Amino acid sequence: MQQVDKLLVHAHLFTMQGQGVGYSADGAVAIAGSMIVGVGPTPQLRSRFAPAEIIDAAGCAVLPGLIDAHMHTPLAVVRGVAQDVANWMQQALAPYTRHLTPQAMLAGTRLNILEGLRSGTTTFGDYYDPIPGWADAFDEFGVRARLTPMINALPAGGMAGWKVGALYPLDEEKGQRMIESAVSFVRDWQGAAGGRITTMLGPQGADMISADQLLQIKAGAQREGVMIHLHLAQGDREIEQMVKRYGRRTPAFLDKLGYLDEQLLGVHLTEATDEEAQLMARRGVRMALCSGSIGIIDGIVPPARPFKEAGGLVCLGSDQASGNNCNNMFNEMKLTALFNKIKYRDPTVMPAWEVLRMATIEGAQAIGLGQEVGSLEVGKKADLIVVDLTEPNLLPVLDEPVRTIVPNLVYAGTGREVRTVLVDGQILMRDGVMLTIDDRAVREQAQLEAQKVARRVAADPLHQGLALLEPMAQGQL
Amino acid sequence: MQQVDKLLVHAHLFTMQGQGVGYSADGAVAIAGSMIVGVGPTPQLRSRFAPAEIIDAAGCAVLPGLIDAHMHTPLAVVRGVAQDVANWMQQALAPYTRHLTPQAMLAGTRLNILEGLRSGTTTFGDYYDPIPGWADAFDEFGVRARLTPMINALPAGGMAGWKVGALYPLDEEKGQRMIESAVSFVRDWQGAAGGRITTMLGPQGADMISADQLLQIKAGAQREGVMIHLHLAQGDREIEQMVKRYGRRTPAFLDKLGYLDEQLLGVHLTEATDEEAQLMARRGVRMALCSGSIGIIDGIVPPARPFKEAGGLVCLGSDQASGNNCNNMFNEMKLTALFNKIKYRDPTVMPAWEVLRMATIEGAQAIGLGQEVGSLEVGKKADLIVVDLTEPNLLPVLDEPVRTIVPNLVYAGTGREVRTVLVDGQILMRDGVMLTIDDRAVREQAQLEAQKVARRVAADPLHQGLALLEPMAQGQL
Repeated sequence: MQQVDKLLVHAHLFTMQGQGVGYSADGAVAIAGSMIVGVGPTPQLRSRFAPAEIIDAAGCAVLPGLIDAHMHTPLAVVRGVAQDVANWMQQALAPYTRHLTPQAMLAGTRLNILEGLRSGTTTFGDYYDPIPGWADAFDEFGVRARLTPMINALPAGGMAGWKVGALYPLDEEKGQRMIESAVSFVRDWQGAAGGRITTMLGPQGADMISADQLLQIKAGAQREGVMIHLHLAQGDREIEQMVKRYGRRTPAFLDKLGYLDEQLLGVHLTEATDEEAQLMARRGVRMALCSGSIGIIDGIVPPARPFKEAGGLVCLGSDQASGNNCNNMFNEMKLTALFNKIKYRDPTVMPAWEVLRMATIEGAQAIGLGQEVGSLEVGKKADLIVVDLTEPNLLPVLDEPVRTIVPNLVYAGTGREVRTVLVDGQILMRDGVMLTIDDRAVREQAQLEAQKVARRVAADPLHQGLALLEPMAQGQL
Repeated sequence: MQQVDKLLVHAHLFTMQGQGVGYSADGAVAIAGSMIVGVGPTPQLRSRFAPAEIIDAAGCAVLPGLIDAHMHTPLAVVRGVAQDVANWMQQALAPYTRHLTPQAMLAGTRLNILEGLRSGTTTFGDYYDPIPGWADAFDEFGVRARLTPMINALPAGGMAGWKVGALYPLDEEKGQRMIESAVSFVRDWQGAAGGRITTMLGPQGADMISADQLLQIKAGAQREGVMIHLHLAQGDREIEQMVKRYGRRTPAFLDKLGYLDEQLLGVHLTEATDEEAQLMARRGVRMALCSGSIGIIDGIVPPARPFKEAGGLVCLGSDQASGNNCNNMFNEMKLTALFNKIKYRDPTVMPAWEVLRMATIEGAQAIGLGQEVGSLEVGKKADLIVVDLTEPNLLPVLDEPVRTIVPNLVYAGTGREVRTVLVDGQILMRDGVMLTIDDRAVREQAQLEAQKVARRVAADPLHQGLALLEPMAQGQL
């Protein structure tokens, strides 16, 4: 009998191995340290392993932890200030981001990790300014993180002086400083916390930095052995800038630059045509699809279907809470399936198992963690979630002639049915209780910092341009 | 000081009075028996009322209970058997409904009430065959119900012998029996349980019964003083039948018949054109919009926007769990807002406050209960929900310059943040615990009955036609 730390037994097990969901009834997972050392039928694993602790998952589904590939966690501190408006960035979010302090942003990050973890996210693909304590927050919670410090060459005052239709000015020196700082972050954090924390390099957009500096980032990413995380065809403004500056739309420009390959995680593709999406997929680019946020902000369903049809790998991202408004992969799975059915007026498009794969194994592969996580198999990290199938919205659990668990998880699940979460073999949440952090303190701190931000915004005359002042005046908020 | 039963204090109060959401900070609600007897600032109500019980709602939003206007609760017992397929009814659901016993259906109803109540639904607009114990189940839980026994004149064997393209045969005698039985149900239950249970008359579709019997139902509804609940333009098959039988599409046919007025709750309008939707709205018809189920089943967003623009009242419905797959009004509010933003490629369409009104005051008005529920005001029934705003996905709670509570409830809420539910002044759920029924028994019974149904389906050769057998064989379920 092999000594192990944990043996999880009697689960409806979804390993996500192979081409489907890898289901087995009465499945078990053996965990030693941070690793999965056994996966199989409960009786078999009970006879092979002597565990220090048994986790009974009867009546529960056990799945790989969910992968949220694209987030801006600090913005959770201003959740709810930017939706139902036409110019999301300028007329809703910008007056708030001006007043975000590092403390407020860190409180947002911690709130967002709590929210994600509560609903089964184990890998956080965060993309923001590397505020002090940012990476430490993920370390402290014990989750897995793939962190990208954003790089741009926009002048210090941001877009304040910019006239619609004009080219943005680019500040090469600022770009240089941000590249160096990002490379330094990558060297500090790549592989930290026993490998739980890894990094990418992230130009904020092809329109926000020069072609030379994009190439410098590409060389840096190759040298450091990390991927590139890039907002790509994210809006009509970006496309206009690219056409004006280079005479090409973003995908064609990046193709010429030699940027379209497996090292690139392209985020959004909101404005990409089907043909552009397919070109990028054929080049090996990975797509991060943020259904919730792009739906709320733009009313658009990005071209993930043609991207997949051309053989591309798609991962899901919850983006930011000021305009999504949640960071919950159950929400992203459901919206991805439903939005695509509506876009193509076809209920067979993006079935439940397909979006579940995007949130697990294909998501892991897309962000370059396919060897470590995303499925439950021997030799992978023990990142997994236990979901209570006896909640009223997930009942009944039927097995024959048609199994109902996966569609019910995707279409009826809310994320709140997740009971227990393990990352790297460590239990981070048990029966809904957080074990590594002070849940209440995280929530109180976020509320406190958010109120300070809101007070500063209210005192700033710029807030008079907020689009949501009108519904406030109408008693609609 | 007036003696009252309950005083709910320190709430973020959303009365839904007026044209917006009727917000006040530190609000209170006084309840005597089943009625609201005071609404106002906490200090003021504390000085006016002497309550037997105080409910502290600090950190919580208090809203009118949510109204689910169109459901088929018995089908919750086969949740998850019918999605991601092209012919939902024939190739997924029908092989199951053949094997539903009255016990199975009743177990489904009870599971569905539990699920709805858990996520803040207080009024259930159910529409199904009146199985024994059906109305009693709602009574026992203590919720409010608006029950419609379905009426059709389809031959006993159902659509088994029907050839695509042919007119359905209509069995006038069966139609007659069903009308009489429905009228008898209305007489038995209208106003039962102290007024909590009310009824409607419900032809299943204008294509499923003769014009004469439709008129007979109309006369019956006028005589009994109840509304008519009707699947309307619900699919292309219905429209084809109507054109073939009467030379008119359903809305024009019903208009000629004198059916389009304020007494009619038209459900779905899936196939209605914008012009037809507007005609019906102008005639005073009320629309039940089932965003989740029509999205999953058909990939369609019904024309609620033109219906509203023509002055129509829209309520929301969760339809059925075999192809939605949940009965949760938070889900319906969010999907309604998002689907319409996508349909019109415009993020300003159907803002949060508008869908919240559809789930509360406008929903109540649409189903004819606007005088009793849907808003928190003196003289209305005390149906209300307490939602915990300190859950991580609903934080922060900001008040100025922009209030964030309503958008976060709609776009980030899952329904699981509902802590306490009152109907008719009675607490049905307190801090997540059901007080009127045995939660566990309801869930176990549903699981047990569902397994029996599944076993019968598996033993029936007809199940070989199930579209989901292929994904089962592929390991995708």
